[in-house]
Amino acid sequence: MIDMKAVVLLSGGLDSATAAAVAKSQGFELYALSFDYGQRHKKELQCARRVGDFFGIKEHRLLSIDLPWARSALTSEDIPVPEDSFDPTSVPVTYVPARNAIFLAFAASYAEALGASDVFAGMNAVDYSGYPDCRPQFLHAFQEALNLGTKSGAEGSAFNIRTPLAGLTKAEIVRYGLKLGVDYSLTWSCYKGGEKACGHCDSCLLRLKGFREAGVQDPLEYENGDQIRR
Amino acid sequence: MIDMKAVVLLSGGLDSATAAAVAKSQGFELYALSFDYGQRHKKELQCARRVGDFFGIKEHRLLSIDLPWARSALTSEDIPVPEDSFDPTSVPVTYVPARNAIFLAFAASYAEALGASDVFAGMNAVDYSGYPDCRPQFLHAFQEALNLGTKSGAEGSAFNIRTPLAGLTKAEIVRYGLKLGVDYSLTWSCYKGGEKACGHCDSCLLRLKGFREAGVQDPLEYENGDQIRR
Repeated sequence: MIDMKAVVLLSGGLDSATAAAVAKSQGFELYALSFDYGQRHKKELQCARRVGDFFGIKEHRLLSIDLPWARSALTSEDIPVPEDSFDPTSVPVTYVPARNAIFLAFAASYAEALGASDVFAGMNAVDYSGYPDCRPQFLHAFQEALNLGTKSGAEGSAFNIRTPLAGLTKAEIVRYGLKLGVDYSLTWSCYKGGEKACGHCDSCLLRLKGFREAGVQDPLEYENGDQIRR
Repeated sequence: MIDMKAVVLLSGGLDSATAAAVAKSQGFELYALSFDYGQRHKKELQCARRVGDFFGIKEHRLLSIDLPWARSALTSEDIPVPEDSFDPTSVPVTYVPARNAIFLAFAASYAEALGASDVFAGMNAVDYSGYPDCRPQFLHAFQEALNLGTKSGAEGSAFNIRTPLAGLTKAEIVRYGLKLGVDYSLTWSCYKGGEKACGHCDSCLLRLKGFREAGVQDPLEYENGDQIRR
């Protein structure tokens, strides 16, 4: 397993940190990729750096990308981040058009340049925000496309998008990560950019649900300080 | 056909200018997207602007993207652009890893934000450089993925990657474009950044072949001044 390289999409959140832990546990040498896409929760990028350091990644690339057309609560200050209104049946206003397609295309480029066949990412579609670009059918189709549209893929070297958390609940992800030694105090999930997590956005609600159902205390501090009761 | 919006990937080259002409002839309102990805032939971006103006596009977005890992003759000054060595059976050193996947992912994001279902692009795979990300099977698979991974696609609004030049020879593209009124003096194909086109890189060779076979003089100036004889 020596010198098997993998690119890891590292947002700084709970899921991608866990995906990185899985990749590391499988013996991959990690190359991390993070994006500043104008998200209001830039704090996650500092967390991505810390998580990367924690896992002893070989190289960490932070790219700035411009999505001037995106009207999303994650990138537009005039669209409020919804609070306590999580609805898994519809695509929320925090959706950023084709974000994961863009991230994965860059990851494929990076992987191909490194001679790596594997990209690890934290997408999951059980306790998730309803983003279509997190669903397994998209990720499978995207992998197929990359295998047809890259030099390495065209030359027969299969390209794998690995989403080891795809079918797990948030509680299962937390348990899995803790078993692998993830320090979740290094991660950040809240869509807002505050000093403490808000505890009310979709991302906080899903994270809190995960820790609660896993029977573990979330090491992050929340504004209301009462995450245990939630 | 009023208000049908389309995103056009506009490189400033012959093919994308022709694809834009096709989109316009079909009644689309055009939104152009161009990329500075560190290519040495930045001159093509000025040409993209001129081509966009020529077609009266509604909006032109120029994005800068960083591919720090790319080792390509198009982006790395220390890798020479090959001359007079065109080999359509192998992927050349001018290949930029996953470039079109990245471009198309951004285009999908832009289109989705505009409420457009159509992305026009100039890819073709007859007289081409052998890039795997120009092949129809990749483009088809990528479209499928986008239909699964975007909000509009997931909600049933089909997303179309339109490559009207896919099966045409370069000569057929030139003839088609001239019929549609394309002013090819506004375009740029040469991989080098010189004042005049070099006449020897793969891109010049394909362009010259196209004009020669179409029986038309290329309006561009070439360094050697003898494109007619080639």
